[in-house]
Amino acid sequence: MNLNEAISNIRLLDEDIQKKVWERWDNLTKPPRSLGRLEEIVVQLAGIMRTDKPKVSNRYIAIMAGDHGVARNGVSAYPQEVTVQMVYNFLSGGAGINAIASTANAKVLVVDVGVSQKIDISHPYFRDYNVLRGTEDFSKGPAMSRESAIKSIEVGIRVVEELNLLGFDILGTGEMGIGNTTPSSAILSVFSPSTPLDLLVGPGTGLDQERINRKIDIIARAIEINNPDPKDPIDVLSKVGGLEIGAIAGLVIGCASIGKPVIIDGFISTIGALLAYKIAPNVLPYIIPSHLSKEPGHKIALELMGLKPLLTLDMRLGEGTGSAIGMLVIDCALSAYYNMRTFEEAGVSRNV
Amino acid sequence: MNLNEAISNIRLLDEDIQKKVWERWDNLTKPPRSLGRLEEIVVQLAGIMRTDKPKVSNRYIAIMAGDHGVARNGVSAYPQEVTVQMVYNFLSGGAGINAIASTANAKVLVVDVGVSQKIDISHPYFRDYNVLRGTEDFSKGPAMSRESAIKSIEVGIRVVEELNLLGFDILGTGEMGIGNTTPSSAILSVFSPSTPLDLLVGPGTGLDQERINRKIDIIARAIEINNPDPKDPIDVLSKVGGLEIGAIAGLVIGCASIGKPVIIDGFISTIGALLAYKIAPNVLPYIIPSHLSKEPGHKIALELMGLKPLLTLDMRLGEGTGSAIGMLVIDCALSAYYNMRTFEEAGVSRNV
Repeated sequence: MNLNEAISNIRLLDEDIQKKVWERWDNLTKPPRSLGRLEEIVVQLAGIMRTDKPKVSNRYIAIMAGDHGVARNGVSAYPQEVTVQMVYNFLSGGAGINAIASTANAKVLVVDVGVSQKIDISHPYFRDYNVLRGTEDFSKGPAMSRESAIKSIEVGIRVVEELNLLGFDILGTGEMGIGNTTPSSAILSVFSPSTPLDLLVGPGTGLDQERINRKIDIIARAIEINNPDPKDPIDVLSKVGGLEIGAIAGLVIGCASIGKPVIIDGFISTIGALLAYKIAPNVLPYIIPSHLSKEPGHKIALELMGLKPLLTLDMRLGEGTGSAIGMLVIDCALSAYYNMRTFEEAGVSRNV
Repeated sequence: MNLNEAISNIRLLDEDIQKKVWERWDNLTKPPRSLGRLEEIVVQLAGIMRTDKPKVSNRYIAIMAGDHGVARNGVSAYPQEVTVQMVYNFLSGGAGINAIASTANAKVLVVDVGVSQKIDISHPYFRDYNVLRGTEDFSKGPAMSRESAIKSIEVGIRVVEELNLLGFDILGTGEMGIGNTTPSSAILSVFSPSTPLDLLVGPGTGLDQERINRKIDIIARAIEINNPDPKDPIDVLSKVGGLEIGAIAGLVIGCASIGKPVIIDGFISTIGALLAYKIAPNVLPYIIPSHLSKEPGHKIALELMGLKPLLTLDMRLGEGTGSAIGMLVIDCALSAYYNMRTFEEAGVSRNV
């Protein structure tokens, strides 16, 4: 599917099925709606999957990796080579996401969308879909062409299609890209022009205040020079975005187009989801937020979509770690939905 | 152990071990502290268990059940008989906590501390430690004697001692008791006298605003009639508390006394923990909060102890459901701690 085909395939959720799921919840031995978000998540999954017996047994975390020309301005606490080093770390199982995804029974797929060096490895969970060897420094001009921006989104859609052939029930987004809180904050600022930049820009992997101020200056300059059009999300992505961010937007659009739920990770993933939402607002009911990260812009980005995170763990790692933990919350929700008894079955009195 | 013995056994956490755990975290392939609360939890567990190899494999949810004389004033949406009906539901595996604890690999132990009817069942996970057949209506006088209040706490301590003989690594608190948000709000109000009652009193299992107002009036009257002494937490428990709330305080004190972590559930459990903290402030580092419930007083109670919840799921079920989900977050934390590679092992560059 290309981007337009994917968008045109997105359907509304199945409300009849959702009513049926609410009916079951309201018959189970608990005060109505007292499982809160757990009940809502099952209703959402049922509406997405168009069945009152949703399941999430087959699950993936898709890590989209890309590099950023703007990282040459010292906007990260880490050198750019760490992106590729971490890709190898993911593929050999030593990173945070490997540990947490394993606990959450999720497989980890790593995709090179825009890493600066060729990744020379053959691995069943690696895909070389490199669009560019990193973006340009967007403090001096556009990060990439409009064509590359669309290609990056279509990488995400392609990944969803491939996973769908293998069979999956839910996808968690993740990313790796040294410097990628900088394009994320820049994109957020374009969509939230009245919010001062110092509320949208944070320490990322660990900048001190002086370097955060430099990052703010670079973003302000980038927006001024490139003048991205907030009404044209692909223009925003191409001018101040990043390839893995575009690919995450593609994962979200792809999942919505084939009727699968997508659980999003922290700040960068949420900005990818925000781009998807700006491109195709009807992706929104397919998105499940996971955690609220420490990066200050994250809350604002979630609020722009009316999404409320399940977990507050003060994390700022990315990689999909929050998505994976969120899958375990979903397991609890489904377990309650399937395994609780009704008032009748348990002989418990209803409310008065 | 009686209460005083348990209190005198509580030790400070092992700070040397905690330093060792921080060192390992800071060597793993991630920006320092970027796993946020996950890192803190492992440090806390290590300090509690006095080992840099903490584990939480053997885990229980202990549901303390009790009835409340004050429930006769219509402060709950459910009739009192539901307490005992739900005890049977827990023991036959049909309640929310059974489903969620099963997903979290936790066993569910149910303890009658103060249920109004005799529970006539022999079951390996049931304990009949009934102190009283429900409290008195505290809008007319004290809920129970000081002696019964201490007994209820000692039930919790006894449960911890028994589980310790069986072998456990972590305990989650849970409760069942129709009407028990009313004593919980009353206790909170005594410890938070400057906060208006309407910020501390909520819908519980589902009251409308008119019935919430009646609940507020009853609590105000109870505090006026009984005049509980905030400097004497056992006086507070006996005058406006509940037997299962005392028992939860006992679970917390018991865990702290034998050096085991205790994960607390929602509003009622947090009030039990608050009582434990007021009785013995050195229990605090043994407590792990789980979720933030929808009951408005919960946030205030957590703040009185400086505790920050991991999950925001808008739940208001109790039973230990939040504790069980929290255990899965802890699994993720330990998995990252044990399974991630160091920078050296993975060949990843450190921050600059």
